[in-house]
Amino acid sequence: MASKSSVTQAIVAHPPIDGIRQWRYENVNIGWPADYEAIVEITASGICHTDLGCGTAPDGSPGFPVSPYPRVLGHEGAGIVREVGPKVSKVGPGDAVLLSFEFCTQCHSCQFGAPGYCSQFSHINFTGDGKTFSTANDNTRNVAGSFFGQSSFSRLTKVQETSIVKVNELIKDEDELKLFAPLGCGIQTGAGTVTELASAKADDTVAVIGLGGVGLAAIMAAKLRGCKSIIGIDRVAGRIELAKKLGATDGINTAEIPDSLTDEVRKITKGVGSTITIDATGVVPLIQQGVEFTAHQGKMILLGVAPMDAGLQIQIVPYMVTGKMIFGSMEGGVYPEEYIPQMIRWYRSGKFPVDKLVKFYPVEKYEQAIRDMENGTTIKPVLLW
Amino acid sequence: MASKSSVTQAIVAHPPIDGIRQWRYENVNIGWPADYEAIVEITASGICHTDLGCGTAPDGSPGFPVSPYPRVLGHEGAGIVREVGPKVSKVGPGDAVLLSFEFCTQCHSCQFGAPGYCSQFSHINFTGDGKTFSTANDNTRNVAGSFFGQSSFSRLTKVQETSIVKVNELIKDEDELKLFAPLGCGIQTGAGTVTELASAKADDTVAVIGLGGVGLAAIMAAKLRGCKSIIGIDRVAGRIELAKKLGATDGINTAEIPDSLTDEVRKITKGVGSTITIDATGVVPLIQQGVEFTAHQGKMILLGVAPMDAGLQIQIVPYMVTGKMIFGSMEGGVYPEEYIPQMIRWYRSGKFPVDKLVKFYPVEKYEQAIRDMENGTTIKPVLLW
Repeated sequence: MASKSSVTQAIVAHPPIDGIRQWRYENVNIGWPADYEAIVEITASGICHTDLGCGTAPDGSPGFPVSPYPRVLGHEGAGIVREVGPKVSKVGPGDAVLLSFEFCTQCHSCQFGAPGYCSQFSHINFTGDGKTFSTANDNTRNVAGSFFGQSSFSRLTKVQETSIVKVNELIKDEDELKLFAPLGCGIQTGAGTVTELASAKADDTVAVIGLGGVGLAAIMAAKLRGCKSIIGIDRVAGRIELAKKLGATDGINTAEIPDSLTDEVRKITKGVGSTITIDATGVVPLIQQGVEFTAHQGKMILLGVAPMDAGLQIQIVPYMVTGKMIFGSMEGGVYPEEYIPQMIRWYRSGKFPVDKLVKFYPVEKYEQAIRDMENGTTIKPVLLW
Repeated sequence: MASKSSVTQAIVAHPPIDGIRQWRYENVNIGWPADYEAIVEITASGICHTDLGCGTAPDGSPGFPVSPYPRVLGHEGAGIVREVGPKVSKVGPGDAVLLSFEFCTQCHSCQFGAPGYCSQFSHINFTGDGKTFSTANDNTRNVAGSFFGQSSFSRLTKVQETSIVKVNELIKDEDELKLFAPLGCGIQTGAGTVTELASAKADDTVAVIGLGGVGLAAIMAAKLRGCKSIIGIDRVAGRIELAKKLGATDGINTAEIPDSLTDEVRKITKGVGSTITIDATGVVPLIQQGVEFTAHQGKMILLGVAPMDAGLQIQIVPYMVTGKMIFGSMEGGVYPEEYIPQMIRWYRSGKFPVDKLVKFYPVEKYEQAIRDMENGTTIKPVLLW
C-alpha cells in the first residue's frame, strides 16, 4: 500500500438479471485514503440481509438509495488498518478494528441522541461513495464503495473514521477478530434494542418476532437482563430451538399454531401481552399483530425492514388508551464505540455467546454462505479473507 | 345523610334533541353508599370537554360507553366527605377531598404501570353505575352516576374510593378546595404528560397543540421543568397570549400562518423539530403534522380525543429510521394520590399558577360556563355548589 493505487479482490455486485443477483469475486483498484478515511485489510466480514437487498434490487429501487452498480457491499467488517488519511486520529497502521456504521457527527441525533438516527444516515450509509473502487482490467469504470462507510466485501477497502471501532486492547487473537466481525451491525442492533433502547429489566416479558442474527441477539440480551419471560417467534423450528438454548423461555412456531399469533402470545402471558415486542422481520401482518399483543404501556419496536411503501394503520383512540409506544430501532440506539466493547466483555463472561450464531466460510464460498443463511441452516455467515 | 336516601340537586343530562344537549339542574334521589363508596358533598366541580361529549352524544354512540340517559356527569370534583361505606379506609366524614378517576387496582397497569391505562378504564369511568341516582319526583326512574367514579355535577354524590384523594393537610381553606377542583383530570393530564410521561428536561423543545386547560397545564409544566423552548399552538389569539404568560417562548396561530404548521415549527426549531409534541386537540390533520414535525427520537404524545373511527397512517420504514415514538397519555400516566399533592406544592411555590386558568361560576350558570369555555374566553370553568 505504498503506491497511490492498489489492486485488491472484492465481491462486486453487478446489475441483477431478471431479479437474480450477479455478484462476482474479482479484482478491483482502490486508491489512496481521503482525509478522514483509513485503508483496512479485511480479515472477516459478516453477511446481512441488507447486503442482499442492496445487491439484488435494480438501480433506483425505492428504499435502496445505493450508488449505481457495480458496487461493493458488506457492512460487518473486521480487519487491520494499513494506511490512514492525513486527518485520521482514532487509529494508525497495524491497529485491529471492528467496523460499524457511518454518521455525520453534526446533526441533532449525532450530538444529543444516538448516531443511528443521524439525519444523514440513509445517504451516507447506503449511497456511500460512487468512486471508491474502479475496475481492475481497464481502471476506467467506477465501482461504488463506502457502503456503511466500509464496503467490507473487499480485501482492502476504504473506511470512514466514524465507522471504526479500535479493538487492539479488547481482543486476544485473530480468531476473536473474526468472530466479532458481525458485532458492528446485526448483533448490536438486536442486543442494543433490548438493553439500551428498551431498557429491558427483570420484570419484562420480551417477544421477538424473527429469529435471525438480529432476533437471536435480542434473545441473548433479554436473557442477559434476566427478563422473566422471553418468547421467540419464527417459522423455522431449528431457530426456535436455538433461541431456547440462548435463553428463550417460550417458542412459537407460526407455521404450526392453530390460533392467531396474538392469541398465542396472550396465552403465554396470561392475557397481559409482551411488555417489549421486537419485530425483526419487516412483515406487515406480523408487525400489526405485534402492536396488538403488546401489553398496555408496552413498547413495540420496529427493526425489520418492511417494504418501502408499507404502512401501519393505528386507530387513534383505542391505541391512545393503552399507552403502547411504537418506535423504530436503528442500530439499537447505541454508540458502537461504547457498545461493541460492552458486548465483548459480556462474551468473555459467558453471557453473550455470539459464537453460537456464527459460521465461517472462505470468501470464495460466499454464495454457499448466502444460501445457508436464506434457508435458515446458518444464522450469521462470516466470510474469511 | 342519616337516612337511606336523600334528595339532592344535580345537573342531569337528558337525551339530546337534534344533537343539542338537554341538561337540567334538578332534584334527584341518592341512596346509601356501597362498601367502597363515600358520599361527598361537592363544593366545586370543573367542566371538561369530555363532560360535553358524554352529555351530548346520543345513547350508544361509539366512543361514549356511558350508561343510558338520564345521567349525571362531572369528573373534576372537590368537596367534603359526609358518609362512607363500611369498607372505606382512606377517608371519613368531614375530610376534604379532590376527586380524580377510578381504576380497578388489579390489572397489570394498575399493579405495575400507571392506573390511567387500567384495562377496565373505559368501562368503570365512562359506563359507571346506571343506578346511582333516581328521579326525585317519583323515585322510579334510574339516573346514571359514578362517571369517573364521582359524577360531581351533583351536590351530594357517591364516589368510588379509588377516585378519592384526601387533601385535609394540603389545603388552607375552602377557597383553595374550589381552586383545586380541576386538578384531578385536565390539569393533571396536561402537567403529568410533560413531567412524568415525557420526563421533560431543560434541553427539550416542547410543542403543545391546543391551548385549553390541558394544553396550558402542559405549558406550565414545561416551564416548570425549564424546557429551553416551549411552543404554544392554537387558533385563538387570546389563548396563545395566555400561554406566553405561562411560559411559552413561542406561539403559532394556525389561523394566521402562511405555511404549514410543520414548516412553522421547523423554522422555530432550526430544522430539528420538537423533541416533545403534545396533541391536545384530537384533530387528525394536526396530529399528522405533529408526528411530522417531531424531532428524530422525539416523542409524539396523543391526549386529545380524536373521533372514534379516526386512524393515523404510519409509513413504516421512513418512520422507523427517525426513532420517533408515538404514544397516548391517559391522565398523564400519574398516580393522583402522589401527583395532586405535588401540583399543590408547585402552586404554593409560585411555579404552577392554576389560578390563571380557572374562572368560577355559580352552579346555576353552567350553560354560561360552557359557552365561555367553548368560545375560548374561559379556559377552565369551575362550578360552585
